[in-house]
Amino acid sequence: MKPVKVGLLGLGTVGGGTLNVLVRNAQEIARRAGREIVVSHAAARDYDPSQLEGLESVEICNDAFDVVANPEVDIVVELIGGYSPAKELVMKAIENGKHVVTANKALIALHGNEIFTAAQKQGVTVAFEAAVAGGIPIIKALREGLSANHINWIAGIINGTGNFILTEMKEKGRDFADVLKEAQELGYAEADPTFDVEGIDAAHKLTILASLAFGIPLQFEKCFTEGISKIEPQDVTYAEEFGYRIKHLGVTRKTEAGVELRVHPTLIPEKRLIANVNGVMNAVLVNGDAVGPTLYYGAGAGSLPTASAVVADVIDVARALTTDPTNRVPHLAFQPGELSDTPVLSMDDVETAYYLRMTVEDKAGVLAAIAGILSEAGISIDAMQQKEPGDADDYVPLVMLTHNVREAAMNTAIAKIEGLAAVRGSVTRIRVEQLS
Amino acid sequence: MKPVKVGLLGLGTVGGGTLNVLVRNAQEIARRAGREIVVSHAAARDYDPSQLEGLESVEICNDAFDVVANPEVDIVVELIGGYSPAKELVMKAIENGKHVVTANKALIALHGNEIFTAAQKQGVTVAFEAAVAGGIPIIKALREGLSANHINWIAGIINGTGNFILTEMKEKGRDFADVLKEAQELGYAEADPTFDVEGIDAAHKLTILASLAFGIPLQFEKCFTEGISKIEPQDVTYAEEFGYRIKHLGVTRKTEAGVELRVHPTLIPEKRLIANVNGVMNAVLVNGDAVGPTLYYGAGAGSLPTASAVVADVIDVARALTTDPTNRVPHLAFQPGELSDTPVLSMDDVETAYYLRMTVEDKAGVLAAIAGILSEAGISIDAMQQKEPGDADDYVPLVMLTHNVREAAMNTAIAKIEGLAAVRGSVTRIRVEQLS
Repeated sequence: MKPVKVGLLGLGTVGGGTLNVLVRNAQEIARRAGREIVVSHAAARDYDPSQLEGLESVEICNDAFDVVANPEVDIVVELIGGYSPAKELVMKAIENGKHVVTANKALIALHGNEIFTAAQKQGVTVAFEAAVAGGIPIIKALREGLSANHINWIAGIINGTGNFILTEMKEKGRDFADVLKEAQELGYAEADPTFDVEGIDAAHKLTILASLAFGIPLQFEKCFTEGISKIEPQDVTYAEEFGYRIKHLGVTRKTEAGVELRVHPTLIPEKRLIANVNGVMNAVLVNGDAVGPTLYYGAGAGSLPTASAVVADVIDVARALTTDPTNRVPHLAFQPGELSDTPVLSMDDVETAYYLRMTVEDKAGVLAAIAGILSEAGISIDAMQQKEPGDADDYVPLVMLTHNVREAAMNTAIAKIEGLAAVRGSVTRIRVEQLS
Repeated sequence: MKPVKVGLLGLGTVGGGTLNVLVRNAQEIARRAGREIVVSHAAARDYDPSQLEGLESVEICNDAFDVVANPEVDIVVELIGGYSPAKELVMKAIENGKHVVTANKALIALHGNEIFTAAQKQGVTVAFEAAVAGGIPIIKALREGLSANHINWIAGIINGTGNFILTEMKEKGRDFADVLKEAQELGYAEADPTFDVEGIDAAHKLTILASLAFGIPLQFEKCFTEGISKIEPQDVTYAEEFGYRIKHLGVTRKTEAGVELRVHPTLIPEKRLIANVNGVMNAVLVNGDAVGPTLYYGAGAGSLPTASAVVADVIDVARALTTDPTNRVPHLAFQPGELSDTPVLSMDDVETAYYLRMTVEDKAGVLAAIAGILSEAGISIDAMQQKEPGDADDYVPLVMLTHNVREAAMNTAIAKIEGLAAVRGSVTRIRVEQLS
């Protein structure tokens, strides 16, 4: 059988890793795929030949559109990132009847519906395992491994930078800005860290997971996103005293009303396995009606882990090259035409428990006023601690855990509490998930 | 498209769960598979109709061979277990051109090579996701999700009964026999617990994982197996003092000399995620050259979790029903004819670190004699603790951790230590894995 020819768009961190894995493990990969897989073409402007293996048999050009148009190329692997020209390249590759593999989470989360429709029409596959949680085969697990289940919910640590920062804050008592600076020096965080620490990157990934789990179209614009930049070291400590850890979670859950889709800092019980996922590692917890809880853990980024997922997709496509397209595993786990119109819930309609921290005057009646506001809003208190006062200050920190309540009710209650004369500044609110 | 018809062999715990999942989630499954999947036939002598859904549309007979011979059945699902008549049924189904799904680990570990050869010849699939770690899609992860990798090693908690016992021993300081009795009362352990506590069940599963990872034929007879019945509460405590937990692990590793294939109690650092997998839960840690460490966690047994894996296989087969058989994902991850003859190592040739516990006379010179024996055998000591003497006894426990050494050298050293007059009884030896 003749080799499958791959055209690589990009020879940077992930593109270089993909080439290296395909060259290093060529023999083992051919034994698995049933045919050789070679990188025949690549498009790249800047690349470092000293970091790349097997370059001598790759035809390299400047213009990615040349690779996409080349009739010799069977599979186009898009590793440029960003929206443009990545989208135009992917659409052109599909139009030319080529299968596509991509690691581009932003592209899939925002333009996946359009891309998959075009691919379906042309009878080609667009594979994107590397778009979520790097090397962890979570897309395959959801689309195929757990296909018997009605998925109840998913909760994931799906941004390594954020998890590194929270881990350092917890283990060393450091503050956010300090750890972020170190993460930038270590290359874990970009110069502009917004995508990572404000949860946008995680929201891209969560959008994709929700579609696969619940059979809904990709709806990135509906995803609620809250970052970790406001988490203070004292919150980490107080959470610990309650037996919890703070993680930046992507949570998506199917309720009767619709699909929750939200990324925010979250307290989780320290005894849960996922609470112990530290540093830059990723983990995704999936709860299905038949299987119960399952967890998938591994490296969420990096050259070789991401390449592991990209190349697995290439092998999948190669194995299926002669398959009748109507019988392939569908892009979004459910067959096209079978997507559901279950709505994505507004954050107002989501119910969770909360950790609240506020600074209150240390005098009689304050606690009663706050408890009154909460009780009026139907919010019951699970645990409460008033901290020792600092020196020369009549104000003390008051922290509490609540039972489940609709976010809208909590918003109203918090506004009222912040309006009390005895409460200084704003109330810190972090959502709590039991994940049981 | 007409429905895919499933013939179920067995309506017990897993068979009943499979029927129930296919009925309950029928609509979602059809949306994923692209066609309806129905249980049209079943063979069972005893079953409890009150536990089964959708029985009215299933034709039930006594003789499983009738289902296997029925021309209406597309996929035979074997959930009888054991070797016979399971093997004859599976071989007959293949001969009749039917696809087969099975949860039978013993059958695959012992007769898989023969079964897959027959299936390949007939162009049918034999799927067995449920044979290893219940609902965790670990076979799919190894065969497809990590197919880009050269797998370095796998370490798994793949027997829930054993993990339940070790968890109870650790958390409550109970002894083995006591917890085993409770596990039997809870239905976690069989009346004859040998398969579980002596590691035979885990060895079946590990044999399958090793084949998928390393592309070698199934070689159950080469698997080293040591049970947990000799673990004492004090070992659990001492391990904890060193910062370790004791788990019953299946470990398979590719070395230059061959493939290690071994099931035994193992100390692992408590900070590893897998050390915190407790109760009846399973977890498999896979280390690949590109992806690094990845972990897969979930329920390893039970009616619905196992059914989750069985039904996922049925959906896979249904999706691929019209696929050219030469392009299917191969049974053992590597293409038939591409299996490797890398030998499975004898336990003598395996290198690990060890925890040793012995009871020694509390007098000068004893430590020196033991250290001398170890040093002579090229074994270096990583940590050592001499415990306080009990009352009215001149003997004290001595525990230590060693660095890596060949098992053969350790066996020789232990024999010599046991020959010392100052050492009472035998030396307890538990292997240690860093899993880093």
